[in-house]
Order: sequence, then C-alpha cells, then structure tokens
Amino acid sequence: MAIKTFRLQVATSAGTDIINITPQVARIASGLGDGALLLFVPGSTAALTTIEYEKGAVSDLKAALERLAPRDMAYAHDSRWGDGNGYAHVRAALLGPSLSVPLADGKLLLGAWQQIVVCDFDNRPRTRDVIVQHLPA
Amino acid sequence: MAIKTFRLQVATSAGTDIINITPQVARIASGLGDGALLLFVPGSTAALTTIEYEKGAVSDLKAALERLAPRDMAYAHDSRWGDGNGYAHVRAALLGPSLSVPLADGKLLLGAWQQIVVCDFDNRPRTRDVIVQHLPA
Amino acid sequence: MAIKTFRLQVATSAGTDIINITPQVARIASGLGDGALLLFVPGSTAALTTIEYEKGAVSDLKAALERLAPRDMAYAHDSRWGDGNGYAHVRAALLGPSLSVPLADGKLLLGAWQQIVVCDFDNRPRTRDVIVQHLPA
Repeated sequence: MAIKTFRLQVATSAGTDIINITPQVARIASGLGDGALLLFVPGSTAALTTIEYEKGAVSDLKAALERLAPRDMAYAHDSRWGDGNGYAHVRAALLGPSLSVPLADGKLLLGAWQQIVVCDFDNRPRTRDVIVQHLPA
Repeated sequence: MAIKTFRLQVATSAGTDIINITPQVARIASGLGDGALLLFVPGSTAALTTIEYEKGAVSDLKAALERLAPRDMAYAHDSRWGDGNGYAHVRAALLGPSLSVPLADGKLLLGAWQQIVVCDFDNRPRTRDVIVQHLPA
Repeated sequence: MAIKTFRLQVATSAGTDIINITPQVARIASGLGDGALLLFVPGSTAALTTIEYEKGAVSDLKAALERLAPRDMAYAHDSRWGDGNGYAHVRAALLGPSLSVPLADGKLLLGAWQQIVVCDFDNRPRTRDVIVQHLPA
C-alpha cells in the first residue's frame, strides 16, 4: 500500500466562483478500487466543500458568504496590502482547504445530489491546482 | 496495512438535528489499535463536526446557524425546486461533510468535552449513513 | 507503510488567539518524504484552518467570527454552566478540528501565502496539543 498523488487544474473567474470538480475527481477514482481520497487546494483565497451543484443552491451559498464576509466591507488586509481581496481570505479560512471522500469499487461515496466543489474567492481569474491523494484499501 | 471501512446509521428528525455519534464511533475504534479515522456523511444537507455535546452549546450552535442561513429566508434553491430546504444546503456546505480523528490504542484522541456530531439540516426525518474508515498505524 | 503520530504543543492566550504552526509542522514534515499529514486539535473550543498569516487577514478573520458568534451575546451554554465561553464552542464547531495537507519530498504543498493555524477561542490561556499524523507514500 502506498498513497498516490494526482493533480487537477481548474480555471476560475474573478469573484466567488464555485466550480464542480466531481467529474474530474470521479475519473481519477474510477481506476482506484477501494479506499479514500484526500483533497486539498493550495492557496489562501480558495476552499473545498460539497454542495448540490445546481444554480439555486450555489447562488444561495454565495449570498450566505456575502452576508458573512461582504466583498465591499473595509478589511485590514486590504488597508495593509491594497490587494482588495480581504473578503476572499476570510471566506477561505472559514470554509477550509481540505476534504476527504470515501471510495468503493472506484466510485465516490457521495450522496445522490452531492458534488465536490472548489470555491475560488479571489478577485482575479486564477488557475487552481487541486491535489487528490488516494489512500488504498 | 489496509484501510477498513465501517458504516453507521443514524435516524434524524426534521429541522436542524445535531446527534452525538461518539459512542458508536468509539465502539468501532475500540478494536482498532492506533492510527486515524476518516469520517464522511453522504448527502448535501448534512455535515460533521465536533462540539461539547450538552444542551446549551448545541442550541447555541443552532442559533448561530439560524443567523447565518435563516430557515425562513427566500432561497433560490427553493424557488427552483420547491424543496423548502435551501437553508439546509447552505448550512451543510459551510460546515462540510468530512472529519478526521486520531486514534491511540483503540481510543479516540478527542478532548475531554469534545464529541463527534452529525448535523442533519434537512426539513424531513432521514436515516443517515456515516462512513468511518480506519487508517492503521 | 504505517501511520506515524507526532504531537505539537502550542501556548495560547485568552480570547480568539490565532497561531501560525506552519514552522513546527514543516519541521516534522522535513524528515518524511511524500504522502499526507492529518492534523487534529483535541478540545471543543479550538479549531484548525489555513490563512495568509499576516496581521490584517488575521484580524479580519477575528472580526468575521465576532459577527458570526459575538463574544458578549447571551449563550445557553453560559447560562447552564457559567463558563463564559459559549462563543468559543460555537466558533470551534463552525471551523472544525481537523485538516489534511499533502506532502512532497518532505515539503508541505501549501500555497505561497498559506499558513496552517490553530485558533484557540477559549476565554483563558491554554496549552494546546496538535496531533500530526503522517500517511506515507
């Protein structure tokens, strides 16, 4: 047994972009039998979670994050560095960069309406790496 | 070494039900020696976290979630699908479906007042699976 | 292959103390080659996440947590137990106690501006253990 490491790339747009990466993760998983996946997004303005990936729920999550850390508030990070992405750092820290998902017979054990998403909160388009690691059974 | 996968079932009630699954997880752990557990709840309206499982702290968490994603707000998810559980999707995405807990000598390395909980936010009773995977030392 | 378990100790101050533990975690990682780390903080008033560890972003995160679960609100936990740390339990449950970080050639695969932090929300100074487990490749 040994952990195997895979890497996805995801192109994101500015603002709070929430992208469904389930198809790419499922493609990796399909060759892997049983075990678990550890997922991680490097970067301090992005996060990973799961959601029902339909337009309504995704916009409801964005609205909740806007209430929690409004984009246009004054942030100390922006005063110090002029980045304009203080809201993004706060949102990313609250959601967190890591996730684990179990695997059976090469299939992700997600719920029927549950998808894996990368949330990119930064205020400019980015290309994000997502690191996917397989812990075999 | 190989990952072993276990499954718990938890009956939940409608609304925001927060259930202590530490006894069931501890029972699984008791046979397992050292290592770590990965926990995952399938479904887009449930989440896992830890809390001091006493009535006060649990109701304080519910109140905070109600401020963050009020049950009776208008949700785009509900407008599109009529499910009435838009709040549940937002709460679940913010808390996240996965958790890891270290294990020593068959015991969970939790704090003295720290319990593992499933949060079911859905607006109807459910039976939830929780997947528990053991990574051995 | 076998999981190896390490333990860090972190002295914290009262209130919401956010401490950068990346140097200590990187020191552990430096001897470990490839794989992944699982991190866990025992205790119901502390949490783990990542953030750009600079004064501005850290104070922005504290301000968001203060909006989410204000320190001076009435908490049912405090009414029942008189602990005065109801806000701490809510904040810890929302952020969560666990995190995973991938490792390549003994280096943490964090973003350039991303640091691992312990958040101690308790209302008195503590010494926190952080458990770091290595899953080897």
